[in-house]
Amino acid sequence: MLLTAFLIIFMSGSALAQDPLPSWNAGPAKKAILEFVAEVTNEKGGQYVEPAERIATFDNDGTLWVESPMYTQVLFAFERVKELAPQHPEWKTTQPFKALLEGDMKTVGAAGMKGLMEILMATHSGMTADEFEQEVTAWLATTKQKKFDRLYTELIYQPQLELLDYLRANGFKTFIVSGGGIAFMRTFSEKAYGIPPEQVVGSSVVTEFQVKDGKPALVRQPKLNFNNDKAGKPVGIYQHIGHRPILAFGNSDSDIQMVEYTMAGEGRRLGLFVHHTDEEREYAYDRKSHVGTLDKALDQAAAKGWIIVDMKQDWKQIFPSKK
Amino acid sequence: MLLTAFLIIFMSGSALAQDPLPSWNAGPAKKAILEFVAEVTNEKGGQYVEPAERIATFDNDGTLWVESPMYTQVLFAFERVKELAPQHPEWKTTQPFKALLEGDMKTVGAAGMKGLMEILMATHSGMTADEFEQEVTAWLATTKQKKFDRLYTELIYQPQLELLDYLRANGFKTFIVSGGGIAFMRTFSEKAYGIPPEQVVGSSVVTEFQVKDGKPALVRQPKLNFNNDKAGKPVGIYQHIGHRPILAFGNSDSDIQMVEYTMAGEGRRLGLFVHHTDEEREYAYDRKSHVGTLDKALDQAAAKGWIIVDMKQDWKQIFPSKK
Repeated sequence: MLLTAFLIIFMSGSALAQDPLPSWNAGPAKKAILEFVAEVTNEKGGQYVEPAERIATFDNDGTLWVESPMYTQVLFAFERVKELAPQHPEWKTTQPFKALLEGDMKTVGAAGMKGLMEILMATHSGMTADEFEQEVTAWLATTKQKKFDRLYTELIYQPQLELLDYLRANGFKTFIVSGGGIAFMRTFSEKAYGIPPEQVVGSSVVTEFQVKDGKPALVRQPKLNFNNDKAGKPVGIYQHIGHRPILAFGNSDSDIQMVEYTMAGEGRRLGLFVHHTDEEREYAYDRKSHVGTLDKALDQAAAKGWIIVDMKQDWKQIFPSKK
Repeated sequence: MLLTAFLIIFMSGSALAQDPLPSWNAGPAKKAILEFVAEVTNEKGGQYVEPAERIATFDNDGTLWVESPMYTQVLFAFERVKELAPQHPEWKTTQPFKALLEGDMKTVGAAGMKGLMEILMATHSGMTADEFEQEVTAWLATTKQKKFDRLYTELIYQPQLELLDYLRANGFKTFIVSGGGIAFMRTFSEKAYGIPPEQVVGSSVVTEFQVKDGKPALVRQPKLNFNNDKAGKPVGIYQHIGHRPILAFGNSDSDIQMVEYTMAGEGRRLGLFVHHTDEEREYAYDRKSHVGTLDKALDQAAAKGWIIVDMKQDWKQIFPSKK
């Protein structure tokens, strides 16, 4: 009992002493977040939520890290095609690989989702789970984003890191729910965001258990297992997490279903979207962007009570300071 | 610092004071578990494992609760067929439903896995995720197992509850990895075992996001999404958890691949199988049983360093005491 009392005093003292979201400017978004957390953690209020049900889900690309001018995982796939080309002479005459190797990005783009899937499957399968993890880890450790000349894992949003910490300090369990590849994201989620691999939900390839060279191994197959995007997001949440979130945070129309599903539960809920409005400190894009298209969600937000987080207005600092 | 010192003294004191596994008799299985946990948590030893990698996976049927004479979920499906029969007049003339409704279990059995899958799909799909959860919860709250005249959720193994607690107290994250239905198990896993829904991995049906009556809902489809059994278990672990366990506990040949995958990682590992040897206090079955067949694993255990837990010898008490 003494220990408990000590802990309570110790923790309340430190919580009162400082702003938990220092990189968030005062404004309606910050206010909505603070009020939401205060209400769902207040045992004596009418909106209290048990810790076990305090599930918060975050999209990754454009919500937790930079996605412009192109999704990081797609850039990884493009560079892998170049590295793997010597082992695939047939790519010299097969589209979209031929165009990609020749730097003809217009033809690559014209190949659409079908072409992109071929490139993703060719670079994301055929190896064991451990080998793929090593390839991604090595690439992320050495490849810099051009505009900012920093590693992709450094181009994560400081205000969101604070929000993740703040939610966890208030008994929330934080998850990534992204259209990106689950195995790709798991290589950095713990270190970058404090989100362990088992709390990452994403798209996946079919994987087979095989015994290779006498050792059991998981071998990634060139076939999509699950597309965790748009209407796939609530399904991924159901299959992986098994409860409905009470907070969902996205940045594009691909997150609408996740936010709708979250908001449709009983009791207090919070749905948020990052709006990329800061061309100087990051990027500015929305309705007509080819990455992170934010169009219908902008139109519907006010009527549905979703919070639009204006990057330029709401965020004091975008990325963590350089070490 | 004072607080930390206090906590360390407080916790070591209580750990020393009592046996963490009182329902386990002294013997090689208990010894192996205690030594394993001591080694992987000893920062100064050569076998230390970071808390983030202390992943323990448990099969459910026959490992955490009773599976004999028939898997609980199959009994649930059989009873649902009887309840749903008035809405399905076609079942009166369609096998295996006709035989099941007539109590002709020999014909039901002869329909094999294909027949069983038809029964499972008919009773596990067509409703929303929330509706299914309510159906299972209501059934488990009222249906008693015949031999013991207790609810199925009371026929869980006391020694395993202690082991789960002991592992968690030592920084492990505990997961269920079962061939059973993920949504079925999630209705009771937290209350019965202290394992939250997001740490349950199991078989699943395809699920669709739909807007029903103006409300977003997840609707269960009559199609298998993933069979989390045998070679599916390491795959389920990869897709859901994303790290290789360091401890895996099963009770049948269906758990061999999970244990092989666990043991094949680097460093200290522990693989265990419950052997049902206690006809009086529970059931006795192994090589020729139609549930929980334990045959190859018994043959291979000694050579592969897997621990066989002999229920009669190793467990002082089988079920939690009646309240």
